[in-house]
Amino acid sequence: MPWTQKTITLKSRPRGFHLVTGEILAALPELAAIHTGLLHLFIQHTSASLTVNENADPDVRKDMEEHLRRLMPDSAPHYLHDAEGPDDMPAHLKSSVLGCGLTIPVTDGRLNMGIWQGIYLGEHRNDARGRHIVATIMGD
Amino acid sequence: MPWTQKTITLKSRPRGFHLVTGEILAALPELAAIHTGLLHLFIQHTSASLTVNENADPDVRKDMEEHLRRLMPDSAPHYLHDAEGPDDMPAHLKSSVLGCGLTIPVTDGRLNMGIWQGIYLGEHRNDARGRHIVATIMGD
Amino acid sequence: MPWTQKTITLKSRPRGFHLVTGEILAALPELAAIHTGLLHLFIQHTSASLTVNENADPDVRKDMEEHLRRLMPDSAPHYLHDAEGPDDMPAHLKSSVLGCGLTIPVTDGRLNMGIWQGIYLGEHRNDARGRHIVATIMGD
Repeated sequence: MPWTQKTITLKSRPRGFHLVTGEILAALPELAAIHTGLLHLFIQHTSASLTVNENADPDVRKDMEEHLRRLMPDSAPHYLHDAEGPDDMPAHLKSSVLGCGLTIPVTDGRLNMGIWQGIYLGEHRNDARGRHIVATIMGD
Repeated sequence: MPWTQKTITLKSRPRGFHLVTGEILAALPELAAIHTGLLHLFIQHTSASLTVNENADPDVRKDMEEHLRRLMPDSAPHYLHDAEGPDDMPAHLKSSVLGCGLTIPVTDGRLNMGIWQGIYLGEHRNDARGRHIVATIMGD
Repeated sequence: MPWTQKTITLKSRPRGFHLVTGEILAALPELAAIHTGLLHLFIQHTSASLTVNENADPDVRKDMEEHLRRLMPDSAPHYLHDAEGPDDMPAHLKSSVLGCGLTIPVTDGRLNMGIWQGIYLGEHRNDARGRHIVATIMGD
């Protein structure tokens, strides 16, 4: 199989964690042709993140946002980098702690995640536009 | 080389961090045929994690557990998601902070890690069964 | 395309976060031949990390160091593992929280990151030598 790569622009979302599995799968019909392989997703931003977590209870997403705000708060007095506002530096911290990329196994044309797993966008800015993700599909 | 993919079920372990390099390698004799490639491991759960850390002193694993309990405590009063117990939401947080996947280089049939590195399972629930890992081997 | 893999030894750097995109690209002229693919980087150490973050303002790197020192402090009284000094165990914690590996898309011979993204080395020891990174290039 040749490698497939495309850029997906997610619709813009408010600050917080959002389940985006469906939006990503809808943009990647090429996955159906992969018997054994991997999907790699890379978010091209330093104030957002990609992670895998629980796909059922929206409270998990609320608790993720609330708890990570406590660990990496807005407006901490020791931040030097605050030109773009109180959410600027904590957004960078969250992007590195959660990560900018995911690799997910593909089996028989489908993402081979656990039944409770989904792909989360972490939107760490108060006011952001649609985020760009480079998707790479490889396999045979 | 064709791609290889299989699901490994780790034996069940208590809450904490556990060195699982040996158990994973024993399940993947196919690695020996790879001259230059990668091993991808993906844990199909949202309350456990995979990470690489120090393979010698068991105290590192104890300190990882203790320190991450302080950063993401059980029973924090602001958690909304607690249906499965006080360890439920912190397990989800740890899974995203540490990550659900690892990619490790393979060289001449072996994992090309540093001599002090090993693969850790982070078991974040008080009472869990054997965890499933999808292993994908690629290379030539 | 055959797979390419090589070990890069970064020049030694002081504790903190350092932009190493240029040093890594200079070591990987093979990227130019990849039309569609991925670069995987793996640091062979348990007291350093690789992450992607903002490539412009050096204050982001200072704030990363300062904030992560607060979350995973030197000399915390509950650390059992301190044989190599007060920076030993927090270095292991940071390595797992930030991660030991990165996968970055390659498109038309170049890393396909966002314009504000760069590759950071997280050097978590007070006194470290040059760190080894295994770089794997795959694609077509």
